[in-house]
Amino acid sequence: MKAYAMLGLNKAGWIEKERPECGPLDAIVTPVALAPCTSDIHTVYEGAIGDRHNLILGHEGVGEIVEVGSLVKAFKPGDVVIMPAITPDWGSLEAQSGYAVHSGGMLGGWKFSNIKDGVFAEFIHINEADANLALLPEGMEPETGCMLSDMMPTGFHASEMAGVKFGDDVCVIGIGPVGLMAVGGAALRGAANLYAVGTRPNCIKVAREFGATDIISYKEGPIHEQILEKTGGKGVDRVLIAGGNVDTFDTAVRMLKPGGSIGNVNYLGSGDYIKIPREAWGVGMGHKTIHAGLMPGGRLRMEKLSAMVVNGRLDPSKLITHRFEGFEHIEEAVALMKDKPADLIKPVVRVK
Amino acid sequence: MKAYAMLGLNKAGWIEKERPECGPLDAIVTPVALAPCTSDIHTVYEGAIGDRHNLILGHEGVGEIVEVGSLVKAFKPGDVVIMPAITPDWGSLEAQSGYAVHSGGMLGGWKFSNIKDGVFAEFIHINEADANLALLPEGMEPETGCMLSDMMPTGFHASEMAGVKFGDDVCVIGIGPVGLMAVGGAALRGAANLYAVGTRPNCIKVAREFGATDIISYKEGPIHEQILEKTGGKGVDRVLIAGGNVDTFDTAVRMLKPGGSIGNVNYLGSGDYIKIPREAWGVGMGHKTIHAGLMPGGRLRMEKLSAMVVNGRLDPSKLITHRFEGFEHIEEAVALMKDKPADLIKPVVRVK
Amino acid sequence: MKAYAMLGLNKAGWIEKERPECGPLDAIVTPVALAPCTSDIHTVYEGAIGDRHNLILGHEGVGEIVEVGSLVKAFKPGDVVIMPAITPDWGSLEAQSGYAVHSGGMLGGWKFSNIKDGVFAEFIHINEADANLALLPEGMEPETGCMLSDMMPTGFHASEMAGVKFGDDVCVIGIGPVGLMAVGGAALRGAANLYAVGTRPNCIKVAREFGATDIISYKEGPIHEQILEKTGGKGVDRVLIAGGNVDTFDTAVRMLKPGGSIGNVNYLGSGDYIKIPREAWGVGMGHKTIHAGLMPGGRLRMEKLSAMVVNGRLDPSKLITHRFEGFEHIEEAVALMKDKPADLIKPVVRVK
Amino acid sequence: MKAYAMLGLNKAGWIEKERPECGPLDAIVTPVALAPCTSDIHTVYEGAIGDRHNLILGHEGVGEIVEVGSLVKAFKPGDVVIMPAITPDWGSLEAQSGYAVHSGGMLGGWKFSNIKDGVFAEFIHINEADANLALLPEGMEPETGCMLSDMMPTGFHASEMAGVKFGDDVCVIGIGPVGLMAVGGAALRGAANLYAVGTRPNCIKVAREFGATDIISYKEGPIHEQILEKTGGKGVDRVLIAGGNVDTFDTAVRMLKPGGSIGNVNYLGSGDYIKIPREAWGVGMGHKTIHAGLMPGGRLRMEKLSAMVVNGRLDPSKLITHRFEGFEHIEEAVALMKDKPADLIKPVVRVK
Repeated sequence: MKAYAMLGLNKAGWIEKERPECGPLDAIVTPVALAPCTSDIHTVYEGAIGDRHNLILGHEGVGEIVEVGSLVKAFKPGDVVIMPAITPDWGSLEAQSGYAVHSGGMLGGWKFSNIKDGVFAEFIHINEADANLALLPEGMEPETGCMLSDMMPTGFHASEMAGVKFGDDVCVIGIGPVGLMAVGGAALRGAANLYAVGTRPNCIKVAREFGATDIISYKEGPIHEQILEKTGGKGVDRVLIAGGNVDTFDTAVRMLKPGGSIGNVNYLGSGDYIKIPREAWGVGMGHKTIHAGLMPGGRLRMEKLSAMVVNGRLDPSKLITHRFEGFEHIEEAVALMKDKPADLIKPVVRVK
Repeated sequence: MKAYAMLGLNKAGWIEKERPECGPLDAIVTPVALAPCTSDIHTVYEGAIGDRHNLILGHEGVGEIVEVGSLVKAFKPGDVVIMPAITPDWGSLEAQSGYAVHSGGMLGGWKFSNIKDGVFAEFIHINEADANLALLPEGMEPETGCMLSDMMPTGFHASEMAGVKFGDDVCVIGIGPVGLMAVGGAALRGAANLYAVGTRPNCIKVAREFGATDIISYKEGPIHEQILEKTGGKGVDRVLIAGGNVDTFDTAVRMLKPGGSIGNVNYLGSGDYIKIPREAWGVGMGHKTIHAGLMPGGRLRMEKLSAMVVNGRLDPSKLITHRFEGFEHIEEAVALMKDKPADLIKPVVRVK
Repeated sequence: MKAYAMLGLNKAGWIEKERPECGPLDAIVTPVALAPCTSDIHTVYEGAIGDRHNLILGHEGVGEIVEVGSLVKAFKPGDVVIMPAITPDWGSLEAQSGYAVHSGGMLGGWKFSNIKDGVFAEFIHINEADANLALLPEGMEPETGCMLSDMMPTGFHASEMAGVKFGDDVCVIGIGPVGLMAVGGAALRGAANLYAVGTRPNCIKVAREFGATDIISYKEGPIHEQILEKTGGKGVDRVLIAGGNVDTFDTAVRMLKPGGSIGNVNYLGSGDYIKIPREAWGVGMGHKTIHAGLMPGGRLRMEKLSAMVVNGRLDPSKLITHRFEGFEHIEEAVALMKDKPADLIKPVVRVK
Repeated sequence: MKAYAMLGLNKAGWIEKERPECGPLDAIVTPVALAPCTSDIHTVYEGAIGDRHNLILGHEGVGEIVEVGSLVKAFKPGDVVIMPAITPDWGSLEAQSGYAVHSGGMLGGWKFSNIKDGVFAEFIHINEADANLALLPEGMEPETGCMLSDMMPTGFHASEMAGVKFGDDVCVIGIGPVGLMAVGGAALRGAANLYAVGTRPNCIKVAREFGATDIISYKEGPIHEQILEKTGGKGVDRVLIAGGNVDTFDTAVRMLKPGGSIGNVNYLGSGDYIKIPREAWGVGMGHKTIHAGLMPGGRLRMEKLSAMVVNGRLDPSKLITHRFEGFEHIEEAVALMKDKPADLIKPVVRVK
């Protein structure tokens, strides 16, 4: 079969590979719509998961089932399904402890384009299909469904971890596609003042539509100083981190109230240490809690979030700025993610 | 001073009473806008808190401070403030355990028109003013502020207790003013399908505006059967109870998924026992958790919820269907709450 | 194979049945030690799960694996394992929502002697072996291991649901084997005053050893009155229910502080409705939360609790009052559970 | 009155100062037993709270009330009370949000020897006496009561923040007096394997008595390597930090399972940044949550923890290695804390 893969560090391209085999709990899916993610860029061009050869890229997509294993009960060939970026082993001890995303070891639920081949292929392998796929709801565009694989569950996870409550003041750092979803998620947990940090006009527009009340630009001075000024020196209840780097936590802690919390969903690509400023952190006694985690995946998550979309709580298709038709355009879509033109939020490729 | 009071069982009317005194932690407030509540009707006409004589009614209002005690730091005469229905003793052991509403004993934070005189008076006593008042935000109408005393914090508390999560299916039983706020609160916690049970057209309209996706009428058959049919036999994740009686829990448990929960904010006025159906409750092993509680009050609650209103998350003034001008119209407004005409949701009286 | 089964209502006896088959995720186990449970008595003599014919009884045991399915990785023939009473389907939507015990429907994780044959057989079928079995720790007697199948995880679950905190006053109603484990669990969550309700001398002795500070007898008057007297009218923070019936909740609510909670692990065998007293429940506003649920099962639970035993936190073998040698003595052990002699807490049968 | 104070950086000594005045909510207490804390050493000799002049030291003690304010209801002169190290303003917004310890600003509930004079004085001022004092239980030695001011509530808070569950594997870093209490607290939350890191024989002995199952010494190699080896590479569920410095978090994160959490109660006296190792923290996606906070104070906390002691859950007097008689020996006791002889855990001074 044909697939778009990491060939080695700094190299991506088309390859031919064996069609994956279908175990008793598995399904084989053929793509209907696919989307590249910044993580694909981290993988190829920043060596995020090391040097890999002929590893098929991609972890966001909607597809049609072409084969199911003998123990699969909930799905059949012909079903059109959302594929979550995270497909855990649900019987693992980690899943039993509430952290399925770390099944078999830290980040072990992240299999696509990491532990196994990704979704930019003519045929895609799904482990534990009954537990990891969800039907694309009737009436939902496959392109919109792609936003449910990773962007929406990741962005929403920031609010979940930080524990946003009714009336909380919240700052979202970074308003790329995940950050925009973090903004939307915070509004849908009842945030009051919702500060979004970013500068690109396209993203600012969607941030406001998703519920941001103030836009903060790093060009106007240190972020935490702006937030402290806007809050009369009090700071915010929650900081959701969806951009930046290991230094971003310094800013985040400084703008946080005692008793507040941070929810990080940003991949931290370099640096030895995350920086937590000692004094602003209350010399270890300030109750500024730091959460950071990979999005929960699996079927229930996909079903719940897609029910929110179907019921009009938020429209994730607002993220889609570039649309392509035809499997071969994956290459172009990945290149867009790499180049990040000013008007890009998220590209999607309709395959069939 | 002049005040509108419960004279005795089934009798309300105007009385003259001494102006309250201001202790060191207290404030005296004169009303700007006031609203009656169904609880006032329970008090006078159903003997909810026993036979009381010359007890001033009312616990919803916005007022202007006319006097503060010697230890009050955050407020001064002239400040226009929201008065929460619940004004706890914040140093009590119950407050330290997280349940300030029960300070000094069950429901002990509910002081207005219960432990002390209510707000339908020319002068109103506020205990622990620094901890229990909140400034009316700039630009907020006093009438809207009245909806923050009880309706919004009570309705929202149903979702808080039930623990509504992203994508949950939720049923709100009862869409009077508190139930409508429960609907709005559930949507603002990320509910997906949001079933609202009620029949009055005015209320149905607001329920939809606040986020209800389906309206259920008891006229079409048992509520739980309708919900089970709409959910393919699965039931909902959360049931918020804002109407009905001790039998309502029977219906609620029957429509609830195992692992789901109930959040009751409805005053239960009669009956010896709340009815929890043994089999539908999993013979005591179904993990269908039952929460029921009085709204949290105090200053922080008022500030947080009013910040949500200021930022446009929800407009509680949609509840207001009848407006009066002049303190003397309290009587008429209370009569409306008693008679409940078909087009009534909530009356408000502007005093000055 | 030979097995001890429910033959029909009010009849139990020995039967011959086909040895179960081993699917790809399953294991077949042969018993090493077995214990009957009050639930077995409910099943046969109270029709708790309806009229059943030739349903093999039993859900507590330690065994030796004799066969594993092709997809099983963590276990192999010869391993001696603890079998939990609850063996969920870990990929189910319910498991993904945190309630594996209700996989596939309410109480659906309770398979032994309910959805499939129980453990009182020469060969026992285990679904999802990797996720549902745990190695018997080195040095732990198989008889002790039997207490981990149901007694310890069920009793401990009462504290988990009720949320016992440091210094809480706790009342445990019922000190049969599950109630004793509830006592032990409450002490191991940091209870201060720990009231145990029961009268049998054997049980009282173990209750004290497990941490009970006061013993309450129903013979001395209504339980809640005794508790209220001992607590100066304040009541307790948590009530753990491990005995009684639908009326027990009346007593429990009356002795509970506002903001307190109930954790029920008792099977409720008869009565249409659980009785929650309206006034003592704060007319629906007292924040007296009611939790009730089946014990979590599965491998992680078994591993965690057996690690507590290995490290000497509590000795569940104190429950064992009667010991038998030989598979054929199952009948006698079941009869003991039915007759409940005064000195019985728990019988165990060593099979090999 | 006479008092022992910080005179300036690196200088402590006796001073004469005005007796404090008693406001309407306050009490004045005269000491019965007092204990110095490592924090007193940080204050004087490390400039932890800056250069202060004639600031009375001390925040641990039991005393007798000599005067109460006009609004105080729960206490009267002659009552012997435990004084918690943390005495919050209970009406503050921070208290209403659940973080009374930060009332009025980060760490604002820590008043003794910080915002106001400490307890090493003939007369001690208590703010909000009703909410911040607790009667010394009958039969409890005043010396033991001193351990309740700070050591026990601080050590126990580590487990509360980290969320220790039944059967968790826990590592406590540091077994000075607070760390020993963290060990005892973890055992009383149901820890299974409980690793205590320390080397002093006196402390090791008490650690074992309080429930430690393994003692780890830094002399045997990096702590996290030892823990990973002992846990088969899996790590622990919780790390409680009660010693070390900003680098200790590096070790803690490395030994922590994904989904695990850290509870820090250690004062971090120097260094710009707490070090969180990027890779071991799952590149920001490992769900290794970091909690760090000051102990909750106030009356309820004192009452709950002293009820645990009265009921024999744990004996905090095991911490006391050195006893003095007479107020003047405060100086000697503080000197001991500074010099830390090998056999010291905690000194106490009986005043009357």
